[in-house]
Amino acid sequence: MMTDSFTQLTLPPKASSCSILFAFSQTDREMFLPGRNLEEEFGAKARWIDTSKIDKDEWEHLLYEASPEILVTAWDTPALSESFALESNLALRYVCHMCGGVRTRVPRNLLARGVLVSNWGTAISHTIAEQAILLTLGALRNLPLWGSFMQLPATRIFQLRTQSLRGRRVGLHGFGGIAREIVEMLKPFRVDISAYSAGVPRELFEHHGVRPCESLEELFSHNNVLIECEALTPVTRGSVTGPLLDLLPQDAVFVNVGRGAVVDEQALIRCAAQGRIRIAVDVYAQEPPALDSGLFRIPNALLSPHIAGPTSDTLPLCGEFAMSNLHKFLQGESVDGVVTLEAYDRSP
Amino acid sequence: MMTDSFTQLTLPPKASSCSILFAFSQTDREMFLPGRNLEEEFGAKARWIDTSKIDKDEWEHLLYEASPEILVTAWDTPALSESFALESNLALRYVCHMCGGVRTRVPRNLLARGVLVSNWGTAISHTIAEQAILLTLGALRNLPLWGSFMQLPATRIFQLRTQSLRGRRVGLHGFGGIAREIVEMLKPFRVDISAYSAGVPRELFEHHGVRPCESLEELFSHNNVLIECEALTPVTRGSVTGPLLDLLPQDAVFVNVGRGAVVDEQALIRCAAQGRIRIAVDVYAQEPPALDSGLFRIPNALLSPHIAGPTSDTLPLCGEFAMSNLHKFLQGESVDGVVTLEAYDRSP
Repeated sequence: MMTDSFTQLTLPPKASSCSILFAFSQTDREMFLPGRNLEEEFGAKARWIDTSKIDKDEWEHLLYEASPEILVTAWDTPALSESFALESNLALRYVCHMCGGVRTRVPRNLLARGVLVSNWGTAISHTIAEQAILLTLGALRNLPLWGSFMQLPATRIFQLRTQSLRGRRVGLHGFGGIAREIVEMLKPFRVDISAYSAGVPRELFEHHGVRPCESLEELFSHNNVLIECEALTPVTRGSVTGPLLDLLPQDAVFVNVGRGAVVDEQALIRCAAQGRIRIAVDVYAQEPPALDSGLFRIPNALLSPHIAGPTSDTLPLCGEFAMSNLHKFLQGESVDGVVTLEAYDRSP
Repeated sequence: MMTDSFTQLTLPPKASSCSILFAFSQTDREMFLPGRNLEEEFGAKARWIDTSKIDKDEWEHLLYEASPEILVTAWDTPALSESFALESNLALRYVCHMCGGVRTRVPRNLLARGVLVSNWGTAISHTIAEQAILLTLGALRNLPLWGSFMQLPATRIFQLRTQSLRGRRVGLHGFGGIAREIVEMLKPFRVDISAYSAGVPRELFEHHGVRPCESLEELFSHNNVLIECEALTPVTRGSVTGPLLDLLPQDAVFVNVGRGAVVDEQALIRCAAQGRIRIAVDVYAQEPPALDSGLFRIPNALLSPHIAGPTSDTLPLCGEFAMSNLHKFLQGESVDGVVTLEAYDRSP
């Protein structure tokens, strides 16, 4: 439901250059920028195109004709082509992506030639941390089995083997923005937190009241709850191996809100199917996971469909974050959530 | 698995009085007092009887013969009879119940004549608060629908309408030990907490950083998340009515970790079935709920089988709490978790 009279480009697009091109679908606009009057906010040199109404050729044509200095994108924005990224007369200076992953949409060459690219950065870290807490508590309580215990008398319900989070040893693999939000949310549960992330200085862990582990082996053998939230890099890919998972204590809980490819998923399935550990995961080796994945045959596996972040109601925050970045860029200030070439290369 | 050589009374019980009678099953003993050597701890005047091996008559007979000053009970302890409670030469001075509800086990007359009765008191409040957080986060994320969204592409997953807890308005109906644990656990989510509980002084709310509401109507109309944790009394029974539930905003979350009978369950079912609110409940008007209850026909209702507290792994804490009470009583100190006549009368 749009409340402004913002001009939409007629199709096929007219040749008219603009400084800011908002290029995403009506649905994107409603989800990310509800009630926002872009015309009033950014003036006549800005244009919005509903990308759900154009095909790939029209999109390419439009980009050349509009030749924007700033491009604002979202989920339904088509990818930018390699040839556009290599265009010699490129006016584009900034791609403000209102979502997360840019790798499938923005060619590496665009970043390499110095075009600024930003995404939602850490604006949604807290929603991912919330999902980590939910999955942890759910696995401790054997949530997927609740239905089958609904009719049992109180004394038998203790066969559900529910565990409290209070006082447990919790290990974090990864120590970025999400891990630090998780640390805050864990505090009232009076847990003992340790963490491991290669290259993170000891002082940063200690500053957040977290005990640094010397190795992944120490992290996994020491903790009853292991929360996976490490970034995917060539080093971390597949780093959570079967032998590492075997170090987790009996009945430990393994939660993954990071990246599926960090974990040897087949080893994880084996470990959980044996009943050695409980698992609660939001991310998978392949997404969506295959219908015949062994994950779906583990009775107490708590599986969420990659929804850790953002939540549906957080999308306007991502839109606000992007619009704030846009104003900063226009005023010559530095923007937040910049996607560096390094971050680009390690994103999935 | 018992590690001590504690003498079990032979059956039928011999006539030998004792100062402390531990009367519960082997299973109770393993759950509540693992690895505890009661003989060493309490000496020769204490006895344990495995109550799963005696019938009602043997139990009555045993009580008269042993004539304990202190009786320690658990789930599998048979009820004390009305005639025993009225016995003129009663030696019994203290019933130390290692669990929660005493009403179905201990006659009111026993308390009325001054026998001290204690239960697990607030030793498990934090586990109930944990369940409240789990149910709240689970309802906000529409957890029961996760399975049906597992194969959908990322952009469609937003139809799951997940909500973040951060920044929401949370209302607590009730402000006892559980509510105050919930307040602590909610803090990192940066929510705005208000509460209502008849008779609780304004200062107590404010001391915990909680805004007191003037009425249930204000509490329900003001909050996106409503956590029910009020004690069951003649005043609170059925106090959460249909008209009150109708005051909750669209898409609000209603969580119950208190008592089922505080809520008009049929009205709750109607409200949730219409899709107006999301519900996540641990306690029911009748337990277990009938198989044909409307609750089971609400696709996104998150239902747990009355497991909020204690968790299986918390039972030893309840045992420790009881043993600590026992030592206090023996040393003439006041015990914790005393069940007053008032608390007895309002318990379910």
